[in-house]
Amino acid sequence: MDGPTEWNGLEIGYDVPAAPGMAEAEIVTPALCLDLDALERNLAAMQARADAAGLTLRPHAKTHRSADVGRLQVAAGAVGLCCQTLSEAEALARGGLTDLLVTNEVRGPRRAARAARLAQRIRLGVCVDDTAGVAELAAAGLGTDAVLDVYVEIEVGNLRCGVPPGAPAAAPAEAVAAAPGLRLAGLQAYHGKAQHIRDPAERRAAIDAAAGAVRETLAALEAAGLPCPVVGGAGTGSWPYEAAAGLWTELQCGSYAFMDADYAAVPDETGAGPAFEHALFVLAEVMSVPAPGRAVCDAGLKALAMDSGPPRIMDREGLAWRGASDEHGILDDPGETLAVGDRLRLIPGHCDPTCNLHDWYVGLRDGRVEALWPVTARGKGF
Amino acid sequence: MDGPTEWNGLEIGYDVPAAPGMAEAEIVTPALCLDLDALERNLAAMQARADAAGLTLRPHAKTHRSADVGRLQVAAGAVGLCCQTLSEAEALARGGLTDLLVTNEVRGPRRAARAARLAQRIRLGVCVDDTAGVAELAAAGLGTDAVLDVYVEIEVGNLRCGVPPGAPAAAPAEAVAAAPGLRLAGLQAYHGKAQHIRDPAERRAAIDAAAGAVRETLAALEAAGLPCPVVGGAGTGSWPYEAAAGLWTELQCGSYAFMDADYAAVPDETGAGPAFEHALFVLAEVMSVPAPGRAVCDAGLKALAMDSGPPRIMDREGLAWRGASDEHGILDDPGETLAVGDRLRLIPGHCDPTCNLHDWYVGLRDGRVEALWPVTARGKGF
Repeated sequence: MDGPTEWNGLEIGYDVPAAPGMAEAEIVTPALCLDLDALERNLAAMQARADAAGLTLRPHAKTHRSADVGRLQVAAGAVGLCCQTLSEAEALARGGLTDLLVTNEVRGPRRAARAARLAQRIRLGVCVDDTAGVAELAAAGLGTDAVLDVYVEIEVGNLRCGVPPGAPAAAPAEAVAAAPGLRLAGLQAYHGKAQHIRDPAERRAAIDAAAGAVRETLAALEAAGLPCPVVGGAGTGSWPYEAAAGLWTELQCGSYAFMDADYAAVPDETGAGPAFEHALFVLAEVMSVPAPGRAVCDAGLKALAMDSGPPRIMDREGLAWRGASDEHGILDDPGETLAVGDRLRLIPGHCDPTCNLHDWYVGLRDGRVEALWPVTARGKGF
Repeated sequence: MDGPTEWNGLEIGYDVPAAPGMAEAEIVTPALCLDLDALERNLAAMQARADAAGLTLRPHAKTHRSADVGRLQVAAGAVGLCCQTLSEAEALARGGLTDLLVTNEVRGPRRAARAARLAQRIRLGVCVDDTAGVAELAAAGLGTDAVLDVYVEIEVGNLRCGVPPGAPAAAPAEAVAAAPGLRLAGLQAYHGKAQHIRDPAERRAAIDAAAGAVRETLAALEAAGLPCPVVGGAGTGSWPYEAAAGLWTELQCGSYAFMDADYAAVPDETGAGPAFEHALFVLAEVMSVPAPGRAVCDAGLKALAMDSGPPRIMDREGLAWRGASDEHGILDDPGETLAVGDRLRLIPGHCDPTCNLHDWYVGLRDGRVEALWPVTARGKGF
């Protein structure tokens, strides 16, 4: 038996993959791991860039769903966090975060009532993209002691949610301004599709088009006599262009904290390669070498999200990922270098849905486990 | 506010998506739902087919990771359940299941010690594919009061784990037979890749080849004077061929209970189409209709596994799934039929990893919630 069996009443290998003080080699696999030094450098680097651009940073917690990582981001200078679902915000509020923006529409009377309750405890923002959504929020009993920050989400090329830019955005904005308990906080202008465009010039052009949509909308709000204190948006792949546009006031990058194989393939604004380090990996163990050149590890579809492609194997250039099933990863190992028990650091194709598969982060420094952090809002999709 | 807010101390819309007695329309989305009538018909149909073939049925719990569904399968006649990880077996044992086979190698001293402890409480089987794995299990302190059933996994075309068939399989089998506390229970001979072959003749040919590997291995064991009481394998796509081969004694089908979009595209042995009904769906809600012909629902990459393709939209032929992001599904709705608040039943491309994203099953009958079942072993990948 390797190492301790119990931590804080939790069984290691059943409830948790590790305990503080353990060596990396003792972690039970598959485990979601963080290189804490790299994480801290990423948080500081992004905050410094936002500061230098004169913009506030509100990192997106949909990447990590972690109150612990969120608190580190706030300690580094972030004004608060973004969430993508209301239950994610509820979970992070229980974890101690006090300024949260749901960058998404919050629809239906049940969710509106929950938003009203949460807004009595923390500073909460939500988005709308039609006047019916505004009416639902206004009917939820706000205006007693709670004030809800409401952002009008506009379509900027993402082809997801969002009212068309310009004059059509003024209608929900006017409805917000007229509703008791709601405060018109600004615009939500996020271009998700632009984040992963590999060619910097094409990526810049996408954000230039988004900037046109923002500019047109700001003019429509001004013509209607409406305020717009905040314009939020941008992500890890595009933020230099939003920062340069002079229209956005708040950056919402998320993946910069961890990075993943897909974002690593997006060159930064200088064309020099990704601006952030890989802080996140899934630690896997070789569990079978059944034939020469083929090895099988214990991380498959339930440990790694595959929507943006397979994981990259860190520091093992001779290996290739051949495929995955539910609980297995198959590796080509033409050099026959792997043996049962060997450990692999797998950089997921897409960090957000990979983190949501796991219950715990294992924080590592200098080869030892320093922290165990729950994935606070795991599964909170409501 | 729609419906109740609390169930058994759990908050509806935060901890759980619904409570028994609620109407389907009141379920908080996205929610993992089961049509209980269809589920029960699937369980009875598979058991009847195994009975008619004279084979035992040990359904694979990696599909559902649910002690509740597993108990229904045992009540319908299954001899026990298969698991794919040891922690999955530990979770199902805590949920009351008493006969479990981990159809996978269980490696390393920590896992071997856990297997030994679990074998003191329930009837437990595990697989090996080399003699080193046998030695780890034997060293774990078995042979006191625990007996561990050990199956030799053989390679039958799946190209994952498994010792080569025939004579090479005799070495680990002999090691098991010689080890105190280990009982040579049989062979594990599962051809996962064959399950999804669309053409029935090709699928049959794959299982014919697997049968050759089993036959060769049985001969090698017999030559070595070793017993082989059980040959386990087969899945929802291939089981008629294993049943017809006369070599396998136990079927390990899993997806038949729920079905998914990928298995629905595999014709059954008659070529007539899938033999089981869709019992599983993710209930999603339209949260935005930002432009004519485009609707956005609240189920994305964190509610639906996409490794086997996007979901199929049930009973809504005019709609097409355009794409997904973390928490959104984008729909083409050329007929402009959808409005905010409309509900969609989404049949996942791949049921196993989809179920593992959710914490609860919502069991439905006659349009009302009858049961809330935890996904007992969610995240149990260790």
